[in-house]
Amino acid sequence: MKKSLLALAILGSFVGAASAQSTLTIFGVVDLSVNQIKNGSTKMTSMQSNQLNSNRLGFRGVEDLGGGMTASFWLEAGMANDDGNVGGSNGISTAFFNRRSTVSLTSDFGELRLGRDYVASFWNTVFGDVNSANGLGQGLNLITGAGALGSTAITIARDNNMVGYFLPGNLGGVYGQFQLAAGEGVSGQKYAGGRLGYAAGPVDVSVAMGQTNTSTSDKFKMSNIGGSYDFGMAKLYGFYNVNKYAARKQSVYELSVGVPLGQGEFRASYGKSVQSGAGTDGDDSTLYGLEYVYNLSKRTAMYTSYGRISNKGAAAFTVAAGAGSAKGATSSGFNVGLRHSF
Amino acid sequence: MKKSLLALAILGSFVGAASAQSTLTIFGVVDLSVNQIKNGSTKMTSMQSNQLNSNRLGFRGVEDLGGGMTASFWLEAGMANDDGNVGGSNGISTAFFNRRSTVSLTSDFGELRLGRDYVASFWNTVFGDVNSANGLGQGLNLITGAGALGSTAITIARDNNMVGYFLPGNLGGVYGQFQLAAGEGVSGQKYAGGRLGYAAGPVDVSVAMGQTNTSTSDKFKMSNIGGSYDFGMAKLYGFYNVNKYAARKQSVYELSVGVPLGQGEFRASYGKSVQSGAGTDGDDSTLYGLEYVYNLSKRTAMYTSYGRISNKGAAAFTVAAGAGSAKGATSSGFNVGLRHSF
Amino acid sequence: MKKSLLALAILGSFVGAASAQSTLTIFGVVDLSVNQIKNGSTKMTSMQSNQLNSNRLGFRGVEDLGGGMTASFWLEAGMANDDGNVGGSNGISTAFFNRRSTVSLTSDFGELRLGRDYVASFWNTVFGDVNSANGLGQGLNLITGAGALGSTAITIARDNNMVGYFLPGNLGGVYGQFQLAAGEGVSGQKYAGGRLGYAAGPVDVSVAMGQTNTSTSDKFKMSNIGGSYDFGMAKLYGFYNVNKYAARKQSVYELSVGVPLGQGEFRASYGKSVQSGAGTDGDDSTLYGLEYVYNLSKRTAMYTSYGRISNKGAAAFTVAAGAGSAKGATSSGFNVGLRHSF
Repeated sequence: MKKSLLALAILGSFVGAASAQSTLTIFGVVDLSVNQIKNGSTKMTSMQSNQLNSNRLGFRGVEDLGGGMTASFWLEAGMANDDGNVGGSNGISTAFFNRRSTVSLTSDFGELRLGRDYVASFWNTVFGDVNSANGLGQGLNLITGAGALGSTAITIARDNNMVGYFLPGNLGGVYGQFQLAAGEGVSGQKYAGGRLGYAAGPVDVSVAMGQTNTSTSDKFKMSNIGGSYDFGMAKLYGFYNVNKYAARKQSVYELSVGVPLGQGEFRASYGKSVQSGAGTDGDDSTLYGLEYVYNLSKRTAMYTSYGRISNKGAAAFTVAAGAGSAKGATSSGFNVGLRHSF
Repeated sequence: MKKSLLALAILGSFVGAASAQSTLTIFGVVDLSVNQIKNGSTKMTSMQSNQLNSNRLGFRGVEDLGGGMTASFWLEAGMANDDGNVGGSNGISTAFFNRRSTVSLTSDFGELRLGRDYVASFWNTVFGDVNSANGLGQGLNLITGAGALGSTAITIARDNNMVGYFLPGNLGGVYGQFQLAAGEGVSGQKYAGGRLGYAAGPVDVSVAMGQTNTSTSDKFKMSNIGGSYDFGMAKLYGFYNVNKYAARKQSVYELSVGVPLGQGEFRASYGKSVQSGAGTDGDDSTLYGLEYVYNLSKRTAMYTSYGRISNKGAAAFTVAAGAGSAKGATSSGFNVGLRHSF
Repeated sequence: MKKSLLALAILGSFVGAASAQSTLTIFGVVDLSVNQIKNGSTKMTSMQSNQLNSNRLGFRGVEDLGGGMTASFWLEAGMANDDGNVGGSNGISTAFFNRRSTVSLTSDFGELRLGRDYVASFWNTVFGDVNSANGLGQGLNLITGAGALGSTAITIARDNNMVGYFLPGNLGGVYGQFQLAAGEGVSGQKYAGGRLGYAAGPVDVSVAMGQTNTSTSDKFKMSNIGGSYDFGMAKLYGFYNVNKYAARKQSVYELSVGVPLGQGEFRASYGKSVQSGAGTDGDDSTLYGLEYVYNLSKRTAMYTSYGRISNKGAAAFTVAAGAGSAKGATSSGFNVGLRHSF
């Protein structure tokens, strides 16, 4: 359909039952930035995706079933627009719709959701961070993804085969979700987790826990609390996350702030990782990040940011991938980027 | 295009020639179920796609060329929404649009269709089965896909490189299709087949044959007859399929019925596979299935089903993949699922 | 959204800022043909994509930012509709959106474009050829893609990680683009190139140069001039391209013509490749092609074409892939096809 526009907002109900109204939405984010990364003594100039928001392409829709019920689906693929790749490599999955692939039935009693989805224990690292778990200064840079703490767990952000229940939206600010994932014989995939939160006015706070079966008899456990408070002239964010596996433990906290500045926002973050057990005592790391986002519109923004992680001992966290990593080294990066969402 | 709706039914003709009216349709199915499968002595709980309808995401369109002619295209990818995978592993193909990828020119004289498509000899196993070749109780569970009867044939359901001709829709109920596929040096890919049927009122019946070149001088041959008869209070389905390759032969028949029940349908199926030749005599199998589908709307349904296959000799057919298989063993499964199409 | 139509041209501005109008366009080409190819003594009948236009599926959109500025994105995947494959194998990339994956910010001063894109030094082989670099008679059949002249350069057509600047459209017919691509440690990926042209009335001419870092200290260099002149009753095209790497050099020119003929166009092309250096002296090749395109509409066309390449010495260029290649042999092909774009 070249040189044509697709409609943004037209209702159509040509599909049978009187109550059936349906929508299909195509959405996405294309975010690219030029980055100068230095990990230890290795420098690299690179183009990176995901630095302000996570690149994606998605299809989702909602059908009104009548009687307060809806059916819906959500298919969302990650993208690396620097090279055109779609899907894959987000934690466990090499799938196309690696970010989310779900079907739901929702009523006044809540939502039943089936498929590949985010795990309950991931969200506090997103909503408790002004960076929304993106970019050089994100707290999540201090948390290993797949294989955290030497376990086989692949459930830091998402999991396959999930049956989820989400509380309805009419509980006076209380929200929550509970999820079970079938292992299907794959080590590190069987998961159970939950999240409970409260959001009203300027405050939003939640706690979450998740545990994952591994290749050993020990389970990988991820527990956290996170939230934000909007003071108007600034919005404060924070999260505290503890990962445990066998004798190993990692505690990470991050405090961050977003300050509206003209058409944009200034952001700063400070984080700390402390590891212990199985010879990792002292493998600690400190993170800070600075960012300025200038909104050209609600959908389009330019941004520039700086991030730095100082590692001690055998810790080797980096602000961005691509330039290797080195134990006990400093990783820093600077970028300038453009994000457009549709 | 977040939080927006795409139009369902708007004509647009901003594209040149006066007669040119075009449509673009995005369509799909997200079907997920929780399954308890037991193959031999192995049990597995899993989330499965495709149990009521085949999961898919597709793009198709039609252009009116005037004079009764249309041009059209059809791109359809299979999906496994339990893990987000798209495309691949449907018989021969690892392609994204593995289900169908065609361009057509249609006139009053019929349709010329080029590309990857279903083969003519597949359809009776779909339309002659109340399960439409999906789920625990489908007759197709008794027919091996790629590599059937020890041949290299990869044309049970679909094939690449096809030139097809489809009879027009104005022949008083007679329908048919004829297809040739280029081998392009790939063993088991060169195919020729046809299908001829009649549908009018309550009756629909067709015969089909297909043959595939293999790595030997013997061709793999698939022949079948199938159909349905709608009695109103129940609709009967049946197919009889014979696969032959060198000295080996497999005959499979299935009888199934769909009984409307309130807002839903009750389904039952019974099938039998008999093998012979090359030491496979007696490797016979019996299938039965039960299913109840409850339609929340035309697009959204919940369902539950049970299927069971009893194998003799070296036969090892299963009601669902994932929990292995064992010669001469019984395979059974139970599931509960949700299907949404868009 | 089965059996429904998507809107072609509806404006929607439900997205915040007063100036924000946005469009999302889904577009594509499905082009399939039956080909008889003979390379040396090897004959093959095959179904091929890309013979009249390049098969593709794409998503693109533009947002009006006000003040003469726009933000836009462009995601475009190649397709092989004979087997349903999407993406991959276009030069360097195995990515889904292998043809283009970019985000842009455009003002009266030009366009800043980030991402995977065509390189500046590719376009003259497209716009200087009546075949637009498709099919049996295209001049590009004489130019090796990835790994040209024994180098590691993978930048004949496209590259990853590009920062590009495009001149605005208001320069009285002058157009141009300049691009830098980060190597990110991948040999043959670091690129710098530019193109400058002039188009007014019947004339369109441009020059371009590009250079790529390789695994050695020598750079791969591609330089060309190309253009077209529309005489009304015929349109002439031509390009001259020189590739250089270390001691090796290849010069290719093509002259081609398109003659409107009723609802269609007759096309003829003649090309020549001359190689020299490092033992390739005399490895020369001659190409010619003939094609007739019959337009059923602006979007749909049938075509038939013939192409032939005569190779000398160790040259082994072919009119189409699939039937191998042989040094010093003749490659010829004939096809009939159907192209539909949407």
